Amino acid sequence: MVAIDSGAFESLLAETGLLNETGGGHLRVVAFSVFVSVLCACIVVGHLFEENRWVNESINALVIGIFSGFVVLLFSKGTNSHILRFDEDFFFLYLLPPIIFNAGFQVKKKQFFRNFIAIMLFGVVGVFISFAIISAGCWLLFPKLGISGLTIRDYLALGTIFSSTDTVCTLQVLHQDETPLLYSLVFGEGVVNDATSVVLFRAVQKFSVTEAEGLTVLHIGADFLYLFFTSTILGVATGLLTAYAIKSLYFGRHSTDREIALMALMAYLSYMLAELLLLSGILTVFFCGIVMSHYTWHNVTESSRITTKHTFATLSFISETFIFLYVGMDALDMEKWRMSKSSPGTFIGIFSSVMLLVLLGRAAFVFPLSALSNYLQRGTRNTRITLKHQVVIWWAGLMRGAVSIALAFNQFATSGISWNPTDATMITSTIIVVLFSTVVFGILTKPLIGWIMPHSMRSIDVSDPPTPKDVAFEAELGLPLLSQDDPSQGNAIRRRSSLSLLLERPTHTIHYLWRKFDDSYMRPVFGGRGFVPYVCDSFKEGEPSESSNG
Amino acid sequence: MVAIDSGAFESLLAETGLLNETGGGHLRVVAFSVFVSVLCACIVVGHLFEENRWVNESINALVIGIFSGFVVLLFSKGTNSHILRFDEDFFFLYLLPPIIFNAGFQVKKKQFFRNFIAIMLFGVVGVFISFAIISAGCWLLFPKLGISGLTIRDYLALGTIFSSTDTVCTLQVLHQDETPLLYSLVFGEGVVNDATSVVLFRAVQKFSVTEAEGLTVLHIGADFLYLFFTSTILGVATGLLTAYAIKSLYFGRHSTDREIALMALMAYLSYMLAELLLLSGILTVFFCGIVMSHYTWHNVTESSRITTKHTFATLSFISETFIFLYVGMDALDMEKWRMSKSSPGTFIGIFSSVMLLVLLGRAAFVFPLSALSNYLQRGTRNTRITLKHQVVIWWAGLMRGAVSIALAFNQFATSGISWNPTDATMITSTIIVVLFSTVVFGILTKPLIGWIMPHSMRSIDVSDPPTPKDVAFEAELGLPLLSQDDPSQGNAIRRRSSLSLLLERPTHTIHYLWRKFDDSYMRPVFGGRGFVPYVCDSFKEGEPSESSNG
Repeated sequence: MVAIDSGAFESLLAETGLLNETGGGHLRVVAFSVFVSVLCACIVVGHLFEENRWVNESINALVIGIFSGFVVLLFSKGTNSHILRFDEDFFFLYLLPPIIFNAGFQVKKKQFFRNFIAIMLFGVVGVFISFAIISAGCWLLFPKLGISGLTIRDYLALGTIFSSTDTVCTLQVLHQDETPLLYSLVFGEGVVNDATSVVLFRAVQKFSVTEAEGLTVLHIGADFLYLFFTSTILGVATGLLTAYAIKSLYFGRHSTDREIALMALMAYLSYMLAELLLLSGILTVFFCGIVMSHYTWHNVTESSRITTKHTFATLSFISETFIFLYVGMDALDMEKWRMSKSSPGTFIGIFSSVMLLVLLGRAAFVFPLSALSNYLQRGTRNTRITLKHQVVIWWAGLMRGAVSIALAFNQFATSGISWNPTDATMITSTIIVVLFSTVVFGILTKPLIGWIMPHSMRSIDVSDPPTPKDVAFEAELGLPLLSQDDPSQGNAIRRRSSLSLLLERPTHTIHYLWRKFDDSYMRPVFGGRGFVPYVCDSFKEGEPSESSNG
Repeated sequence: MVAIDSGAFESLLAETGLLNETGGGHLRVVAFSVFVSVLCACIVVGHLFEENRWVNESINALVIGIFSGFVVLLFSKGTNSHILRFDEDFFFLYLLPPIIFNAGFQVKKKQFFRNFIAIMLFGVVGVFISFAIISAGCWLLFPKLGISGLTIRDYLALGTIFSSTDTVCTLQVLHQDETPLLYSLVFGEGVVNDATSVVLFRAVQKFSVTEAEGLTVLHIGADFLYLFFTSTILGVATGLLTAYAIKSLYFGRHSTDREIALMALMAYLSYMLAELLLLSGILTVFFCGIVMSHYTWHNVTESSRITTKHTFATLSFISETFIFLYVGMDALDMEKWRMSKSSPGTFIGIFSSVMLLVLLGRAAFVFPLSALSNYLQRGTRNTRITLKHQVVIWWAGLMRGAVSIALAFNQFATSGISWNPTDATMITSTIIVVLFSTVVFGILTKPLIGWIMPHSMRSIDVSDPPTPKDVAFEAELGLPLLSQDDPSQGNAIRRRSSLSLLLERPTHTIHYLWRKFDDSYMRPVFGGRGFVPYVCDSFKEGEPSESSNG
């Protein structure tokens, strides 16, 4: 069984029009059955279209959602397009945690930390730049479109809503073996962006309008940093506690079911605890996922490893499908369209402004920050972001997805229903932007990337040989070479001081120091790859992050 | 993440006394976090006590539940012992399906169908006998204890509530390798009993009091048969559909996540559909589990197999722990004790009557039906139920568990709260019976079975050689011998007609005909063990039913 539950179904529409004569409990079962059937249909259709040039998982779920919405609309005689009502609590408590935890659990840690600086620039600094541009742009443009009644906090919220990206579509097109750097940057930015925009959204919500405007940015920045660090620490602590518990308590006797249950429950607990302490559950559960895949995952039986890896991936997959399906149904919600009272002209105006700001806001940070990253990592092999890479990164972050929708609901609706015309307009506009960017940009992604980076070019990317400087560096640090080059080259280079290395290649040096610390202090206590003696090598399933989600 | 959800938390007590000053959403997160923490504690403590002579998983969860209830009682200054409110809908929609599906999925099909007659006698006919005795006994005894206000339907419901057994405790003591027949009988009776008592409970609920008394039994029997067959057909159909979909759509390309998602969702859908059509979800999902483990499970990738096997087991494990934890907390619910207004004397009276009826009701069918089963299967090797076996089977079914509690809540409470003294008394009495039988009988089980069947005796059970008649029979049917005996013995025996074989050994013959049908018609369409060419033999994880739940 999976983690789909009735939280949202409590607020289920009693007017589904299908079985009005029966009680609420029975109606819930009907709605639930229909939704699960549609979900199954999505999975099967998604599989059939997997190798299609234009369609991807998200588009597929959106289209099936729109179609189901249309059918429900017909059955309910135009009153309703939902099988279920969306509840932003349901999204934040049940659908988002598995997605983010899985992202942390499956992240390729080596690539992630090697490109740490660039990922953080795009995922954190970039969101701030995009947020500033979109907020300011909306604040300037919306009043001219005749939209009134939005507070400064609403404009700031719009900035975070439209700064949250959805990179799943681009990741389906890129291949991590062909373009490891690009894949890692897009993937890394995607998860950090999710976390940053949610944390920023929380910081904006806490912001009081009466404060002096000059202090606003500082205040939001301070809140952001506080949330970022405390949440990370909580996630790491929970992950380490689980690793320690499983390593120390399970002397010899192993119980697969208990290990799996403990990992899943502790991961979820970390999210809940973060929410309880008013921190960011999303960051907590992301770092909990990273720590669990680095320590805990290696302390359990082989069956537990395979099971957790696939169970978490499946839950994440179901949650994502669920969300896009829902967004598709929501697009036909007549109630909202009527409520907003805006003319098609206004919608076109809002839509064009937002799309323009999204394109600009993203361009405003991808190209400058890429240059900055190239400058900072100038000495390091294979971390140079070429112009073509930059265009792909810019494009990858143009899609808007589930997080945007959830944040918009959180800001402009109560229990899934928006009560005034402006709020209804904001929600419907968000849905239009998400639908348009996912479907139109999504369809263009595969041809575009094929055109920018033909396969012949992409394979060059991988065979890029390390410079002698690289070899020297890694030889000096005692790191194994990551490519299959002749290690004897390293012997020719003289040793230099750690300090000069740190200045020249900060990421590599930090990685080296971390590994030393990890091997000496962390692994003896918390376990980890190769540490626990009962690891059986005959069973080659690899680390969760080492195989694709197939 | 796992399938624990907020269905019950909607009806969460706002008076937990821990964080009254915050809003309902936050309170829900607090309650949820505490509950998940306690669940984690249960898992760890359960592991530590695994090899303990007296304690088992259920007792452990019950005791931790009582302890947590006590702590909550202290914090809330005596007003409340719950972290969460039990909702029988939550139990039937989310906790029970994984437990029953897993039972079907992990059942040893060969043993199950070999002992089919005996299992059905105990699990179906036995429940009817026990139900009749307990209903009649309560109807005679309760008025003498001063309990009034119970309708005939209530008495019939009490009969099903106290006929539902919980054999988990005994199964933890028995070893399927040492006593395969006994293990299979106890396990098989356990799952069939669960299904029968729920189906019977539904039939009783539909029964109208105004009907002529003579027709009552007939009516309930007819309802039962209708529910039994339609539910079974629905479960088998869903399982076959899933097997067919995965086999036919997944030509060459496999996606582990999609396969797992599809199996889990379809299993859940079968339960939901059954509830929707007012059938018995529990029977449907049980047979769906059997069909899925026989066909679907063999059509998926090896990773999917390991993952589904352990995920379903883990979900079942978490659900069971959840239930016992809750029952422990519920035992200290002061509200119910006050509401019932009964004296301790009345409780002792009810408790003694019910325990007496349970002991009697079970004895009344175990011994006669064992004799009947021995008579029916007189020609078959290894299916004779000895007197010692009978005593163990009788004992194994004395514990009352989660299903009893859930049925009692369903009958005597609305949204977890009982509104009149008699109903409150019935619920508290059920809790006392469950607590007493689980803890006291549970603690005695290991020593008792050790005393009845010492290890030396149990191993004799396995080495019991087949009679020449057996060998002849299996050789004649072309069945491979299940033990490692000399197959040449079979040649000495002359062939007989199929009809005389069917009359003499019905189960074996049916099994043989089924296998022929399965190989010729079912497997080519729906897949199954060894049929699909990509099954990789280097990977020995076995069928889900072939390893214990470790």
